Amino acid sequence: MNSIITPLGNFPLLPFSLPELGLPLLATEVPADSGPIVLAGVLLSLVVIYLASKVGGEITKSLDLPPVLGELIGGVVIGVSALRLVVFPETGATAADSQIMTVLQWVGGLSPADIPAIFATQSEVLSVLAELGVIILLFEIGLESDLRELQKVGYQATLVAVVGVAVPFGVGTAGAMLLFHVPAIPAIFAGAALTATSIGITSKVLSELGQLKSREGQIIVGAAVIDDVLGIIVLAVVASLAKTGEIDVLNVIYLIVSATAFLLGAIFLGKFFNKSFVAVASSLQTRGNLVIPALIFAFVMAFLGNVIHLEAILGAFAAGLVLDETDTRKELDEQIKSIADILVPIFFVTVGAKADLSVLNPAIPTNREGLVIASFLILIAILGKMVTGWVVWGDWAVNRLAIGIGMIPRGEVGLVFAGIGTASGVLSKPLEAAIIVMVILTTFLAPPGLRFAFKGQAQAEAVAEAVPQGSDPS
Amino acid sequence: MNSIITPLGNFPLLPFSLPELGLPLLATEVPADSGPIVLAGVLLSLVVIYLASKVGGEITKSLDLPPVLGELIGGVVIGVSALRLVVFPETGATAADSQIMTVLQWVGGLSPADIPAIFATQSEVLSVLAELGVIILLFEIGLESDLRELQKVGYQATLVAVVGVAVPFGVGTAGAMLLFHVPAIPAIFAGAALTATSIGITSKVLSELGQLKSREGQIIVGAAVIDDVLGIIVLAVVASLAKTGEIDVLNVIYLIVSATAFLLGAIFLGKFFNKSFVAVASSLQTRGNLVIPALIFAFVMAFLGNVIHLEAILGAFAAGLVLDETDTRKELDEQIKSIADILVPIFFVTVGAKADLSVLNPAIPTNREGLVIASFLILIAILGKMVTGWVVWGDWAVNRLAIGIGMIPRGEVGLVFAGIGTASGVLSKPLEAAIIVMVILTTFLAPPGLRFAFKGQAQAEAVAEAVPQGSDPS
Repeated sequence: MNSIITPLGNFPLLPFSLPELGLPLLATEVPADSGPIVLAGVLLSLVVIYLASKVGGEITKSLDLPPVLGELIGGVVIGVSALRLVVFPETGATAADSQIMTVLQWVGGLSPADIPAIFATQSEVLSVLAELGVIILLFEIGLESDLRELQKVGYQATLVAVVGVAVPFGVGTAGAMLLFHVPAIPAIFAGAALTATSIGITSKVLSELGQLKSREGQIIVGAAVIDDVLGIIVLAVVASLAKTGEIDVLNVIYLIVSATAFLLGAIFLGKFFNKSFVAVASSLQTRGNLVIPALIFAFVMAFLGNVIHLEAILGAFAAGLVLDETDTRKELDEQIKSIADILVPIFFVTVGAKADLSVLNPAIPTNREGLVIASFLILIAILGKMVTGWVVWGDWAVNRLAIGIGMIPRGEVGLVFAGIGTASGVLSKPLEAAIIVMVILTTFLAPPGLRFAFKGQAQAEAVAEAVPQGSDPS
Repeated sequence: MNSIITPLGNFPLLPFSLPELGLPLLATEVPADSGPIVLAGVLLSLVVIYLASKVGGEITKSLDLPPVLGELIGGVVIGVSALRLVVFPETGATAADSQIMTVLQWVGGLSPADIPAIFATQSEVLSVLAELGVIILLFEIGLESDLRELQKVGYQATLVAVVGVAVPFGVGTAGAMLLFHVPAIPAIFAGAALTATSIGITSKVLSELGQLKSREGQIIVGAAVIDDVLGIIVLAVVASLAKTGEIDVLNVIYLIVSATAFLLGAIFLGKFFNKSFVAVASSLQTRGNLVIPALIFAFVMAFLGNVIHLEAILGAFAAGLVLDETDTRKELDEQIKSIADILVPIFFVTVGAKADLSVLNPAIPTNREGLVIASFLILIAILGKMVTGWVVWGDWAVNRLAIGIGMIPRGEVGLVFAGIGTASGVLSKPLEAAIIVMVILTTFLAPPGLRFAFKGQAQAEAVAEAVPQGSDPS
């Protein structure tokens, strides 16, 4: 591609920017070139992101591993840790670190003064696209989930979630204080970072393995949703501790009440809303008669989830769960699939692109202390979630290993804890690095781990089926 | 919705922002709340945009008019001219004009200092989504077009495009100078603004009328594409005239050569690329095996179209045209349709939202001079394109009225001329207003006009078919 672009770099630039929709052209205060250049940057970033997702996904698929692992690794390759094609300001990268900005500067002849603003805008656009991706993913997971099946496993999922928050939090905090002599508040922060489960990664792997609708899959998804809510409450407690040294009890009560009311209210009201949705969709005559009303509902729920200080993805999941009950589900599912195919990879690739693996390098002396603490945190992160599989009662045939492993990935939620801790000055550099290492490793371990856990089950079932036939030599 | 949001406005805010992907949380220099608030603003804007597109589209559809007209009008209703829910900085609107920003400020308790940056970022995200929408639209139009059919009408389309640029430009410039005593350079600007055809609006209407693959449809699309290239060249000439008083001949030659090489090269190389695309897509095992390689190709072409100072949409159209020839077209078409359904309405609604109808108000004295010039420009804009239908030779059965009307909408391209003219200080306020009025009216007239032209044809054909049957009373 460079050979095509090179001669243009030296070509005298036109005195105007591209007439592409003319957006920022009409604004006199914005640099005349920024709109089309932002578009060019987004297009180039999407090409790189899609290439990384497909190359990575196909390689892991051919190795019989979940494709999402390949998308995460593809993201690492194009991200801040390696090629630096797609980097984000929140990892500390500047426009000068972005290879795509270098290409744009080269072909666009931009003045260096405009670059930081263009880089910031482009990063924000990609971040919103990634967030729309995870919103669509959770909407799709909600559509594919069965509300009745989820209600059946409700108690088990709640128990798995509570144990999966309490054990890592308690053991992590105590261990950090006793073994590493970390002061109380940073230790609580480290413990809190161990609590969350990445609902996006775990549900995507379950979907890829065809296990989303299995009993284990529904327990994991249900527990991950409850875990997300618990994680938000833990975060509220820890953040107010870090800021004022006290717990804002009012906030905690508000969060618990609003989260419960939101999820239960959405499902309850949804049963009535269902019929009006089908009636509206079938009365519309223009293109997108099904998918646009569905997205309006999903985005309203995501917006409400966002503004009441829960997560947008919880709203999208609830919306999907509600529409799951409608007759039009199959057609909608098919259309949402195409949309998910183009938006969801942006989310996973950018999660990988934001993972800064340089904290894993033991050659850097300041990393070593972090790596020692990280080893401890990783151990607790894995064991503390693995035990959750064994608290499921009343169902002895359930795959406990799969449930435990399904709760392991911390993903983006864990990084939020590290980010808030660093921003508030509570976390030391080694402790922050340790949390990031823990998040990266648990995120990358879960997809092959789940694959392994369900493979073992499939083999055991095959053996179990083979035995009666073998014992009956008629 | 307000009753749900109200109590939260007074609720003590959490000391941290939502853990939504944690994007700007991790950046210490960005206001802690901006990421999730930008996402909330985008979600709310999308809900409003989708509602406007569906309500508007359904109403015009029920009136037997093309749905895209309803989407444009829906955009006007929610935009700068009426409800001011979705406004953009390039129409001169600030964050204080945006009702959605008011809602966000209310529910998010933002500091007034952060609002302008959040508004600017949200607007940029919506603009990029709209541009991705028109890129996907032109990709889809390319997929639905038939390259062989387009080549057959190539000479006619070129003639239609050249006449449709030359006549409005010549008559418009001369009329402005002779009738309204406008100085030469602003008159040339006004004439130039009459040249462009909005390929997005015209092709969408053709697709909605089921006329895209008709001979008339292919002539209009082919002519609109060539017209777009000619418009870019005219814009380059006029902009350099406005800036330096001279024409940059090198630039003009460069644009002509690069545009021709790009379009012909894409189609020529595409014939070879076809087979590799099918081979790659059929060898991939993961989700999105067809749509992701297709989008990579479309986005690469759009990026190249953008950086060589053509338009991104021309690259996307060429990409669609090339893939049209593949065996996998039908399956791809189906998947792109779902993606187009959610992205394309964003484009048309924002075009409507950006149309500032206050320039049409004759009660404002400064508008009156503009409205008089506008009446003249509108007349030339319509007649100058209508004549193009009668230059098609060698095919006497062709619907000349439809071709002429199909070239009328100026859409966003005309606004770019007005914007550049205003930014460079060449256009007086009345002349700028006149150009904007001309763009708005031609854009809104074309969809019902095309509907009328093709309806007349259908009736004539029905009569022609009925006559031989009637004359045979056996």
